[in-house]
Amino acid sequence: MGIRIGMGVDVHQLGEGRDLMLGGVHVPHDKGAIGHSDADVLLHAICDALLGALALGDIGVHFPDTSAEFKGIDSKILLRRTYELVQKEGYRIVNIDSTLLLEAPKIKPFVPQMQQTIAEILGLTIRDVSIKATTNEQMGYVGRKEGVVAYATVLLES
Amino acid sequence: MGIRIGMGVDVHQLGEGRDLMLGGVHVPHDKGAIGHSDADVLLHAICDALLGALALGDIGVHFPDTSAEFKGIDSKILLRRTYELVQKEGYRIVNIDSTLLLEAPKIKPFVPQMQQTIAEILGLTIRDVSIKATTNEQMGYVGRKEGVVAYATVLLES
Amino acid sequence: MGIRIGMGVDVHQLGEGRDLMLGGVHVPHDKGAIGHSDADVLLHAICDALLGALALGDIGVHFPDTSAEFKGIDSKILLRRTYELVQKEGYRIVNIDSTLLLEAPKIKPFVPQMQQTIAEILGLTIRDVSIKATTNEQMGYVGRKEGVVAYATVLLES
Repeated sequence: MGIRIGMGVDVHQLGEGRDLMLGGVHVPHDKGAIGHSDADVLLHAICDALLGALALGDIGVHFPDTSAEFKGIDSKILLRRTYELVQKEGYRIVNIDSTLLLEAPKIKPFVPQMQQTIAEILGLTIRDVSIKATTNEQMGYVGRKEGVVAYATVLLES
Repeated sequence: MGIRIGMGVDVHQLGEGRDLMLGGVHVPHDKGAIGHSDADVLLHAICDALLGALALGDIGVHFPDTSAEFKGIDSKILLRRTYELVQKEGYRIVNIDSTLLLEAPKIKPFVPQMQQTIAEILGLTIRDVSIKATTNEQMGYVGRKEGVVAYATVLLES
Repeated sequence: MGIRIGMGVDVHQLGEGRDLMLGGVHVPHDKGAIGHSDADVLLHAICDALLGALALGDIGVHFPDTSAEFKGIDSKILLRRTYELVQKEGYRIVNIDSTLLLEAPKIKPFVPQMQQTIAEILGLTIRDVSIKATTNEQMGYVGRKEGVVAYATVLLES
């Protein structure tokens, strides 16, 4: 049976002077995520879940943060390339579920646009791309608004 | 093929003067989880996993913590309502796996009752509702007994 | 349909004077994970995912850290015993995906050996055992190199 499971986790610091990119969408905020690429924690977690389902390595292996090629890159490009690897292995995505842990801002108004953006890249409908969010209840580095975490899980079929 | 994957994460602070509700069961302890509802972190993570598998939004969308309707509510009611949404979409639960991260108390003696409680709400047997637990090895806000985290993953079939 | 999902999370402190065992492989480092067994956080997360998929309890139930039998034990033995429980229930593993959160050292050079080690114990090929890694971006106890976290997810079929 050609079904596979994958899961991704990603973490980024938040800092001033950066755009906050989440799920391929610019979310207005006084801080943005810090990273070599555009630091889109949600897209990175989804990339890692897709790669992991097929044991293709991780996002750091495919898109190293020491490479000039990926400096400031739009993570939608990374997701597109990751999906090409999945397709090359003969798999398609059944559904994606994901959760953002961040204290602020409220992302609910941006979720439909994130779903649409991701669905288009992956040839899915928005009913196959779930994005949920929760705060960390003011605890830890997420609770102190110093960082953001994303979890993604994915089901593939051949 | 009508199979779907979902995953939920929930976090709550622990504080004095509250009952500790976990998996629908009152666990005797000197602290309880703080929240708008009864703050049952395990049931919330399961709700989020169920909603996420079908991209129905998250628990905050369906049961907002700004609504008087959900003030102090028994999370078993939220789980029941969530399951009705799943059934309305034509899906049933194959199995649930979950993990509680909390430093104290030991929940092992309460796990069978939690399994039974959740299984009854969801029309499952206890063999389809896994509840695991681990400490955070005295690290972070969980390790300092300031908070509790729950992860849940779920497989649905149509 | 005989398909099941499981997920495991494990956390260990890092300290001096211990070997760092990850995925059944000794990774040279100035610190090792602290625990009753060899504290292999990755193998423990995989054990918990396997047990959780079949609601067989958790690693603490099967291999209690209060038992002299498991003092300093090689976690590969725990993984083998866990897999025997899975087989006894009539299930086999479709695939495993996992993520290590640790700030240092870089584990990439050791991943193929970890995959091989785990695959041999579980009767899989390395294409069915995914091991990914990410730092915690210098945040929290992982970021301060005080601890390590592992997540594992698994798909079983009967």
